[in-house]
This record gives sequence, structure tokens and C-alpha cells, in this order.
Amino acid sequence: MESTILLSQGDIKEVLTMKDVVEICDKTFVGFGEGTTINPTKVGLDLGEKAAYPPYEGFMNAMPAYVGWCDSAGIKWAGGLLGERKKAGLPYITSMILLMNPKMGNFTAAMDGALITNWRTGSQAAISLKYTITHKKNIKIAIYGAGMQGRTSTMAISQIFDIDELRVYDLYKSAGEKFKEDMKEYVKGEIVVVENPEDAAKDVDAIITVTQSKNKFLKNEWIKPGMVVVPMGSYQECDDEFILSADKIMVDHVGQCLHRGVLKELAEAGKITEETLYATIGEVAAGKKAAGIKSDERILCVPIGTGAMDIAIATVVRDRAIEKGLGDNFAFVV
Amino acid sequence: MESTILLSQGDIKEVLTMKDVVEICDKTFVGFGEGTTINPTKVGLDLGEKAAYPPYEGFMNAMPAYVGWCDSAGIKWAGGLLGERKKAGLPYITSMILLMNPKMGNFTAAMDGALITNWRTGSQAAISLKYTITHKKNIKIAIYGAGMQGRTSTMAISQIFDIDELRVYDLYKSAGEKFKEDMKEYVKGEIVVVENPEDAAKDVDAIITVTQSKNKFLKNEWIKPGMVVVPMGSYQECDDEFILSADKIMVDHVGQCLHRGVLKELAEAGKITEETLYATIGEVAAGKKAAGIKSDERILCVPIGTGAMDIAIATVVRDRAIEKGLGDNFAFVV
Repeated sequence: MESTILLSQGDIKEVLTMKDVVEICDKTFVGFGEGTTINPTKVGLDLGEKAAYPPYEGFMNAMPAYVGWCDSAGIKWAGGLLGERKKAGLPYITSMILLMNPKMGNFTAAMDGALITNWRTGSQAAISLKYTITHKKNIKIAIYGAGMQGRTSTMAISQIFDIDELRVYDLYKSAGEKFKEDMKEYVKGEIVVVENPEDAAKDVDAIITVTQSKNKFLKNEWIKPGMVVVPMGSYQECDDEFILSADKIMVDHVGQCLHRGVLKELAEAGKITEETLYATIGEVAAGKKAAGIKSDERILCVPIGTGAMDIAIATVVRDRAIEKGLGDNFAFVV
Repeated sequence: MESTILLSQGDIKEVLTMKDVVEICDKTFVGFGEGTTINPTKVGLDLGEKAAYPPYEGFMNAMPAYVGWCDSAGIKWAGGLLGERKKAGLPYITSMILLMNPKMGNFTAAMDGALITNWRTGSQAAISLKYTITHKKNIKIAIYGAGMQGRTSTMAISQIFDIDELRVYDLYKSAGEKFKEDMKEYVKGEIVVVENPEDAAKDVDAIITVTQSKNKFLKNEWIKPGMVVVPMGSYQECDDEFILSADKIMVDHVGQCLHRGVLKELAEAGKITEETLYATIGEVAAGKKAAGIKSDERILCVPIGTGAMDIAIATVVRDRAIEKGLGDNFAFVV
């Protein structure tokens, strides 16, 4: 009983598709709404991202969760580092996931968490659109930030919608061009690389921002009635005016969303409170609050990221990997 | 670079002694005082210990930390479970530790955390006495609770002091007798198993409580001038009168100690605040606040437990294990 399965990124890729990830995240959002997904507010360890000490350029977040529908508990420890890690050509995200049997207390799996983090982040964007754009299947979207999470968002959204047009903006036009090349198979219509940020938002149904920008670059006047905005960066990517005038604000996790990301600054100023929020994504997914956007509404939907998604995905990965005989095993408690 | 060493309890035992653990914890306490030990407040996941759901009898705490003196970051995920785990004859504590290189972000080790948890908990009691009982080397102590942590406390205290007498009380006298048998080698003088809780506290220099009691069984009138009380249970083991009349209260971690353990109730009632506290153990260890107890003083010292201790110990274990070629290796990021 006390042996732990060890799984690499390669093992995970063998048993997981983006379609799986979207479905797993959707179920876990429903669990949030129904009260069977238990997800304490994450706790951070600043390694020098903002703090003066330690002298590194990163942070780590500890994200424990229990997910009722798969009866699994676990923790993801994940963060981002620049500095020497970037110089060495390693990806920004570093992460591990541990799973335990919540009844017996033994650790059932240890696996890479970076791949799952990237895929579930994209899935959270897709599910944000699933419960807001309920009136059509063919959509036009804007992506700000042609990096990893722009890609996984596109891949995940394509599992639920037909993307008739994707307008992408990146600080570096070459990144946009590379994105266009890589994402072709997920987009039915055209991918348009724009040079002016304002142009990306024109005539789209949804705007996804996945940048590391510390500027409020997305302007209120670009966002027209009927549009959904999904900001996924660590900082505030849209201006105060939009946040304060959006018809509905939805979040994945109230505690976390008021303390980090796009709403942090206005929440700290007392201008956004729990009462300002229309619903959690989970409440809408569970049918407790109405889904859908009206043609005269503008919706801000913030899936800041919850460990519960990672734990649910990791649990499915573990069970499939055991069935397939993948990975390795180690007995920690002997 | 991206390979992770895996270590079992057996591997850890091969490279670690209680003497090491006491020294490592001491250095890490000094780091707390000097500001080089970074230890965010732990975040809990209730699996049904207090919450109505999920339906299990346990909890897990996520404890990330960075320790400057060994330049290491990591997380311990640790908790306790009764119920089916207890029925299966498994120990209360279940735990894993992950270590990372704080500059490069790669995960360097995954190891069992239960053994380290038990040993460091005992060491925290020993260091609490080291900085309060500074005027003698031969001491008499009382232990309430003849379980694992009563044992590791005794073992650790014997690294710093000669124990001239140890008075032990347990709800079950047979547990006390077994403790006496097991702990002989660590106690120079006699181990006295008492049947009446009050008798344990008679004529001792220090009282260590390591019980799962939810009663405030340790009475103010039992605690005489010159005595140090170190409560390590999850609940309040001593009465309000003692806490409110102790001459000095020391803690290992202000944030945690005001929200759990012995001070929780009075802190929530506003009767104990950060201002009530004399010092952190770290401040005393670093020489920023005076050590020692006066003959007319009674000190309450609360080492509730910090992940930094575990991360520091695990780092030393990792480095020694690599040198000795112990454990196994797995590449998670491939």
C-alpha cells in the first residue's frame, strides 16, 4: 500500500489529452459550485520576485486541495522563476504534484506539475467561455500574449468552440508569427497577427490576456457589449474603468481573486468586494447562477487558477498510468 | 540537472542523528531571528478533522520555507489521520518533503517527511529549553504524553542537558511504563511514571506537554517560579490563568501561534496579541532578546512547528545521501 508511483512529463502526455483536461476541469468547477471541491487559498513563498530576500527571481505557490468527484487529495507546489533559470533556457514554470489517499493517508503519486499546470490554465480559459458564451458554437477570439498559456488556451477553447478567427498580439511580432504557425490546427478560421494591441480586440466575442505585463494595457473603450474578458496574468492587464463598469464579474475562487491578479488593486482599495461579484464559475457550472452573456452585457471572468484542477487531473493521470504500467515506483515509508 | 533523488525513512536514518537534528534546528532558529529563514504561515486542508466534509478523520498542512544558511527551498506536506489509517495500524503522522534549487527551480529531492517531523518536533522542545534554562546543565523535566513526540523530545533534550529526573504522565499507565523502558538510555537519572497528572509537575525545571488532549489539564497552581512550560499539542493543554500570568511568552512563529495551538483561544478573544509576546525563539537564539529564566519567573514557550526546520533537515539529508549514493533517482521533467 505504501508504494508511490512516479510519473514524468512524458508519462503524463501518454495518458492525457487536452480534451480530457477540459472535461476534468469542468467537473471540478461543478464540484466547486456544489461544495465537493475543497480548495484552501494558496500560500506563496517569495524567493525574491517581490521580496528583497532571498536573492532569486521567482516565487512558489503551495496549492492543496481535495476533489470529491474523484475522492482524491493532493498538493501542487508550483511557481515561476526567471534569472538563472531563464538563462539556462529552462521554462518559466516549475512544479511538482503529490497525491494522497485521503482516507488512509498514504502518498499514492508524485509527478511533474508543469505540463498539467499549463494545460489546466488553458482549460480554465475555455471553461470561462463555455459558461458565458452559451448562445453560439462559432466564435472569434483575441489572445494577448503568444506564449505557452496563449497556446494552451487556444487548444482548450478549440475543444469546446469552433474558432472562426483568432487575433493575436504579442510585444514581439515574431512570437505572434510563431504562434500562428503552431496553432493552425486548432483554429478553423484565420489567425491574424496584429501589431497594434487595440486591433486584437476588434469584433471578437472573447478576449484572453495571458501576459506578464504590469501595465493596464487593455482599455475599457476596446471592450464592446457582448464581449467576455478573461485576464489570466499575474498583474492587472485591463484598466480600472473596465473592471468597475463590467456588468458581471465572475471568479474561480473568491479568496484568491481578491488578493492577487487582476482584481487585487481595486479589492485592496475597497472598490471590489465579494458583494461586487456576480458568481463563481463553479456556481454557474453547477447551475446555481445563470450562465450566458446578454448582447448588451460585458463580462469579466477571472480564472486565477486553483490547485483542485491540478489534483483532479493528476488523479486521472495516476489511475491511467497504473493501468498502463507507466512510470516508476518508490517506497518512501520503509 | 533535472533528476530528483528519492529517499525513504530508512535512507534518512542512515545519514541523520538526533544530534544533527538539534544542531540544524538551532541554526534555523537563529536564521528566523536574523531574517534569513523565510517561513510563510502554513495552510491547512481539512479532510474531516473539524469540517463536516470530506468524511475522513484528518488534516494536512502545507509548509513551504526557504532556509538561508543552507540556501534551500522546499515544502513539507504533513498531517495526521485517525479512522481507517489508525485501524490499519499505521502511524498518525503522514508526510512528504520536496526540495528545490531556489535559483534554478529544479526539484532536487522528494523524501519521507514523517520521521523528520517527529525528530524536529522533539528538537524544537529541546531548543526551547536551551534558550530558557541557561543557568544549568542538569535538569528535571516532566513529560505529559508518552507517545512518539514525548520520546523524540526526551531524545533531543538529552543532547543538550543531562536529565537528572524525568516524570512522565500518560492517560494509560502502560504507555508510561513502555516509555520508561524505551527512554532509559537518554535519561541519566530516574524515569518516574506518575498516575496523577499533578505529580508529574512537582519539582521540575521544565514541563513538556505533547498530548492530543482537548482539556486544559495543566493547572496554573502546579507551575512554580523558575519553571518553563513547553506545550506542543494541537489544542490548549494549560489553563487560561497560566497563559495570562506567565512572565514571558515566547513562540517560534507569531502568525501561526496566534491562530492554532495553545494560544489560539485567548488570541481570538483578544487577550493575547503580538504585543503580549516577549520574543520569538529565533530572536533569542540570534541574541536579539535576552535568553534565560530568572528564579522568580515562569516562562511559556510555544514551538508550534515550522516547515523551515523540516526543509533544513531534509537539505542536509539530501546532500549526505547523494554523497553516500543512497536512495533512487527519477527524472520528472522529461
